[in-house]
Amino acid sequence: MIRDAASRAGGHVRRTPLLNATGLDKIAGRQVFVKAECLQHTGSFKYRGARAAISALAANGATNGVIAFSSGNHAQGVARAAAEHGLAAVIVMPADAPRAKIDGTRALGAEVVPYDRATEDRDAIGAKLAKERGLTLVKPFDEPEVIAGQGSVGLELAEQARAEGIERAEVLVCCGGGGLTSGIATALAEEAPGLIVRPVEPVGFDDVGRSLKAGRIERNAQTTGSICDAILTPAPGEITFPIIAAHCGPALAVPDEDCLRAMAAAFRHLKLVLEPGGAIALAAALFHGAELSTDPVIAIASGGNVDADLFARALATYGEGP
Amino acid sequence: MIRDAASRAGGHVRRTPLLNATGLDKIAGRQVFVKAECLQHTGSFKYRGARAAISALAANGATNGVIAFSSGNHAQGVARAAAEHGLAAVIVMPADAPRAKIDGTRALGAEVVPYDRATEDRDAIGAKLAKERGLTLVKPFDEPEVIAGQGSVGLELAEQARAEGIERAEVLVCCGGGGLTSGIATALAEEAPGLIVRPVEPVGFDDVGRSLKAGRIERNAQTTGSICDAILTPAPGEITFPIIAAHCGPALAVPDEDCLRAMAAAFRHLKLVLEPGGAIALAAALFHGAELSTDPVIAIASGGNVDADLFARALATYGEGP
Repeated sequence: MIRDAASRAGGHVRRTPLLNATGLDKIAGRQVFVKAECLQHTGSFKYRGARAAISALAANGATNGVIAFSSGNHAQGVARAAAEHGLAAVIVMPADAPRAKIDGTRALGAEVVPYDRATEDRDAIGAKLAKERGLTLVKPFDEPEVIAGQGSVGLELAEQARAEGIERAEVLVCCGGGGLTSGIATALAEEAPGLIVRPVEPVGFDDVGRSLKAGRIERNAQTTGSICDAILTPAPGEITFPIIAAHCGPALAVPDEDCLRAMAAAFRHLKLVLEPGGAIALAAALFHGAELSTDPVIAIASGGNVDADLFARALATYGEGP
Repeated sequence: MIRDAASRAGGHVRRTPLLNATGLDKIAGRQVFVKAECLQHTGSFKYRGARAAISALAANGATNGVIAFSSGNHAQGVARAAAEHGLAAVIVMPADAPRAKIDGTRALGAEVVPYDRATEDRDAIGAKLAKERGLTLVKPFDEPEVIAGQGSVGLELAEQARAEGIERAEVLVCCGGGGLTSGIATALAEEAPGLIVRPVEPVGFDDVGRSLKAGRIERNAQTTGSICDAILTPAPGEITFPIIAAHCGPALAVPDEDCLRAMAAAFRHLKLVLEPGGAIALAAALFHGAELSTDPVIAIASGGNVDADLFARALATYGEGP
């Protein structure tokens, strides 16, 4: 399914570069490679999964349009992929999502339906709209086609690592619901078995780490309270978790402040704009080396949809170095 | 020479991606492609020319080490290329160069010799050091091997434009001394004659524009006073100017404030960090469309070595859009 998704995506999904920088290697004390998925269309890897799911739906002539719930990255991926297939897209978004993500979703032609996280029921709003308008739900992660689309990152990475002469490395992947993590892990298990995925989560939202230890799905106590808005999910998926358990090494938990430091390091050394959740894997590579066991390590820089004021805060605090 | 330089650079110089974004097309009112040379090693295209020149010197066994004058991008390119060839590098830099560039040059192993632009004679300092230590000068632009190295951007662009189906387009290139501009123009004249280079300069530093009109080299009245520190040179080169005159369309002059706006647009829509001089070609594409005549246009985003406080200023002023 990953190979099929990649083949349907040809000419649409961007092959993102694998970058490195002497300055990052010095901070980490080992070689660090970064897969710059923030350069993907819509500013995050989410377009891959959305494109895979929607191209499969469209091929079957199965829908009038699509609906999704998202704080912003899945939203923009779905909006773009739907527009490419001539389908309407409705996105139910929390009213407090980052401005850049709400504006970006609208700019891609989707209808944004905001809701109040504290007082309104997202699922009820979505179900009503889906029924009224005959829309098909595109789930953000626990959906085989979406996982297959995200897995195309792994296919590219396997080739790029080979070209760099990397046979053995830990691959740090930001982990919310586990779509990207499970997709990459599946692809690498087949294409580059010396590359082992390590999920990375925000401190306090370590559902995957606890689930891996417990051997069953554990939930987060809350889904707000970190700047890593893109990866705050209640629990790993029913489909994604068994894949993660089968293929990944232990998870790491990274505090928000380290994500800001990693954003400043990516600004300085890679000339990339990362959002906090998109920088968390790089943060693990740079500042949590004691928990890693390979040299080099590879970090997936998964997205760059960040508001200017938060980015400026990262620069003001950590922009001077190292 | 460009092909030779590219072939010697294989596996060292990074092939940078050609990016685009719906949001940029909307601002410009036409399709805009961006060659993201800020992702080059050392954060700018200058590494290409430095690598070409130093690899040629090293192949001849011609030197003990190299010396260069630079406000920062050529400095870092020379520092990296020299280190790769096991050669010492001494860089004579203005004491008021951006911190990111001074620190970056030192981090790459070069010896930085600061001088005061107002009171000290850069050339005298350099000549004395070169003589004492037997160092070879690597000129920043008016040197055939350097032009050949920068020209490798044009070889890549010709291929990438072909892959995008672009046969005819204006290619906006930031222009200081003209090394990048003349190198790209030479490569495109051979490989993609439908792609025509347009030099872009800061308002008040339009020596190339005036020289093109006059048909002979004209000088700038000053070389300070714009935030585009990377492209403030006294005049086009004796070697670069005839090439520019033979192959390029008319130059454009862009005010500093538009460079800050373009930096914010690249942040928002491309997730790239650009320095002011590195954003000036994109600024021309986005905000000076009346002077352009093709759709699409291509802008070279030539560098991203910018201090955090200046980048934060661009975001604070223009980060909210469009």
